[in-house]
Amino acid sequence: MANDDALRIFDTRFHNPSIFDVRQATNASELLDFCVPANSYFPPAALLARIREELPDILKYYPDYSPVHQANIGRLIGLAPEHIVPANGVTELITQLCLDAQGPILTDTPTFGRWTDLPQQHGVPIHFIERCKDRDFGLTVDEIVAQAKVTGCGTFVLCNPSNPTGACSSLADVESLLDQLQHLALVIIDESFIDFASVPSAEKAVLRFPNAIVVKSMGKALGWHGIRLGYGVANAALAERLRARTPYWNINGLAARVLQEVNRFEPEYRTSFTKVAADREHLYRSLCELPGLKPYPSETNFVYVELLGGRSGRALRDELVRDHGIFVRECSNKVGSSEHYLRLVARKRPDVDRLIAALRQVLRIPVAAVT
Amino acid sequence: MANDDALRIFDTRFHNPSIFDVRQATNASELLDFCVPANSYFPPAALLARIREELPDILKYYPDYSPVHQANIGRLIGLAPEHIVPANGVTELITQLCLDAQGPILTDTPTFGRWTDLPQQHGVPIHFIERCKDRDFGLTVDEIVAQAKVTGCGTFVLCNPSNPTGACSSLADVESLLDQLQHLALVIIDESFIDFASVPSAEKAVLRFPNAIVVKSMGKALGWHGIRLGYGVANAALAERLRARTPYWNINGLAARVLQEVNRFEPEYRTSFTKVAADREHLYRSLCELPGLKPYPSETNFVYVELLGGRSGRALRDELVRDHGIFVRECSNKVGSSEHYLRLVARKRPDVDRLIAALRQVLRIPVAAVT
Repeated sequence: MANDDALRIFDTRFHNPSIFDVRQATNASELLDFCVPANSYFPPAALLARIREELPDILKYYPDYSPVHQANIGRLIGLAPEHIVPANGVTELITQLCLDAQGPILTDTPTFGRWTDLPQQHGVPIHFIERCKDRDFGLTVDEIVAQAKVTGCGTFVLCNPSNPTGACSSLADVESLLDQLQHLALVIIDESFIDFASVPSAEKAVLRFPNAIVVKSMGKALGWHGIRLGYGVANAALAERLRARTPYWNINGLAARVLQEVNRFEPEYRTSFTKVAADREHLYRSLCELPGLKPYPSETNFVYVELLGGRSGRALRDELVRDHGIFVRECSNKVGSSEHYLRLVARKRPDVDRLIAALRQVLRIPVAAVT
Repeated sequence: MANDDALRIFDTRFHNPSIFDVRQATNASELLDFCVPANSYFPPAALLARIREELPDILKYYPDYSPVHQANIGRLIGLAPEHIVPANGVTELITQLCLDAQGPILTDTPTFGRWTDLPQQHGVPIHFIERCKDRDFGLTVDEIVAQAKVTGCGTFVLCNPSNPTGACSSLADVESLLDQLQHLALVIIDESFIDFASVPSAEKAVLRFPNAIVVKSMGKALGWHGIRLGYGVANAALAERLRARTPYWNINGLAARVLQEVNRFEPEYRTSFTKVAADREHLYRSLCELPGLKPYPSETNFVYVELLGGRSGRALRDELVRDHGIFVRECSNKVGSSEHYLRLVARKRPDVDRLIAALRQVLRIPVAAVT
C-alpha cells in the first residue's frame, strides 16, 4: 500500500502523524486505526445528524461563553458549575499548568507525552516515577509520597488510568495521595480515560483540597477528538483562577453544541463505556493467545503490549500499515517506554479479529502455535 | 417578542450575550443580526456542503499539528510558514500577549474589549489613546509616538482598522510607527477587519522588525465565527517563541478543514470582501439620511453610529429587538465609547432597508424629514 519513503511521516517531532497524513502517505482510504483511542459506541448517529443539521448556525456565530459550558459539563458529571474549567482539549490545561508550575514537577512514566515534553521544552525541572512491568505498571501511594519527598517536587501529576499502560489506582489510593500531598503547590490527576475504568473518578474528592485538580479530555469518551473539548475540576477559587487565564470563546461552536446535546444522549453515553470495556477484554484475551506478545491488564480503552525478544515495534508498525492497512502506535517517543511496546485501542470484535490475523502473519506464528 | 425581564441577558460581564441566548430570550428564531460582524458573502454553499459531508472524519480524529495550518495560512496570505502562529481565534493570541506583556500597554480606544479588559483584569498597567470623533476617530503617527514616550509603554497595540470606529491607518503610517517604536518590547497590529478595507495589510512589513506582530481573526473574513480561527504573523524567531507556548491541537478539526478548503475557494473569498465593502457604503449612506444619527466613515464591515441628543442606545437596542426582531450592539461596555454609539454590521441591502425602516419607527422620524 505504501512505500518506505511514504512511511517517513512517522519520523515526526509530534506525538504521531495525524490519520489524514497516514491515509495520504499510504493511499489507504479504509485504514483500520488502532492508534486513536476513540469510543467505538459514541456518538450515536442521531447526534451526528443533529450536528449536521445545525452546522450553519454552529459555524456562523460566536460560541457561548464559559458559564454555559460550565453548566453543561457540571450537569453531566454532577458538580456545580463553579468547579468547572472548560478547555480547548485537555492539552490547553496541561500547557497552562506546566508553564505555570511551581517547583519541579514529578510525574509517573510512561505517560501522555505532553506531561513529560512540555516541562522539558520550557526548562521546568521534572522528575519521573517509572512504572514497572513486573508489577503490571501499578504504583503504590507510599512510593509516590516517598518520591515526592526525595525530589522536593512542587507539582505532582498522576495519569489515572495510566496512558499508555492502562494501570489504574483506586479512588482510596488517590484520596490518600491528595491527603498526604497537601504541602505541594499542586496535585494534578489526569483522568482522561477514567470513563472506561471500573474505578470511580476523583472529581468530587479534589474539591476538598485547595491544591488539587482533576483534568480530563472529553474526546476519548465522546468518540470525537476533532472537536477539542476537555475540562478541569477543582475547588471554586482554583477553578476561577484558571478560567481567568483562559481565552474567551476557547470552546468552539461545534464543541459547545455537542456539550449541550450530550446530556440528551446520556443513556447511550453511559452504556458505551461498558461496551468498550467488553471490547478491551476481548482484545486483551486475544493478544494473550499470541506467542511473542505480552499484553498487560488495562482499565482503559486500549491495551499496552510488550513485544518480546527485542522485536522492533517500528518494523511491525510499518509492516502492518503497508501490507495490512492497519495503523498501530509503537511507544518509542514516550519517556519510560520504548519501541518494544505498542498501545492498541479497543475496537469492535471484527476489527480486533482482523488485527489478530494480521499480527499472526507479521509475527509468523504458525497456526499450530495458537493455543 | 420579548419582555423586559428576558432582555436582562444584555446585563452580562462578557462582550455581549451570544446569539443563541438572544434568540432564546426573545423567542425569535429569525432574528436579524446587526451585531456579529460576519461576512455575508462567504462561505459559499459548496464549502458548507463539503464540510457537512466530511463531518464524521473531521469530528472523529485528532486534527493536524501546527505545521499543516502554518502552510495553509501561509499559502492564503503569501508568506512562508515559519512566520505564522495559528491560533484558536485571535483571542488566544491576545490573551497570551496581554498576560506576557512587558511594561505598560498602550492601546487606542475604543477598541476590541479584550485589549482593554484583559490587562486590567490581570493587573497589567495600561494606558489609552482616545480616538476623537472630531477627526472621524483617526490617529496620527506623531500623536501615537508622543503618547508612547509620555507613558513609557513597553507594548503598543493598534487595532487597524479600528473596531468599533472603522477608522483606518495607511500602510505608510503603520510602517512609520513600526520604525519609530523599535525600542518597545512589542508592537501589535490587530488586523482582524483589514480584509474589508482599501488599505493593505502590514503582514509583510512586520517581518522586518524583531518586536512587531500582526494578529488577526479569520472568523470575520471567513464568515464563520464559531469555528475559532486566527493567526499571528511575525519574524521567524518571535513566531517560534509564540508557537512553543501554544497548546498542541489548538486548532480544532473543523477549523483545520476549512483552512485546507478555503484555498480552493479563493476567488469567491476575495470577491466577497468587495461585495461587503459595497454593502457597507449602502449602510453608511442610508444612515446618513436619518436625522438624529451620525454615522462615521468606515473601512470595515460595520459602521460606527453616534446617537445624537443623548439618546439611550440601550433603550434603542431593547426596542429594536423586542418590536422588530433586530439585534444591534450598543457600545456602553467599551472603554472610550458609550451607550450613545452603535456598531452596525454591513449586511445585504434588503436587511439594511429593514433596519432603516425600523430605525425610522423607533426614532419617530416623520416621513417628511427623510431627505
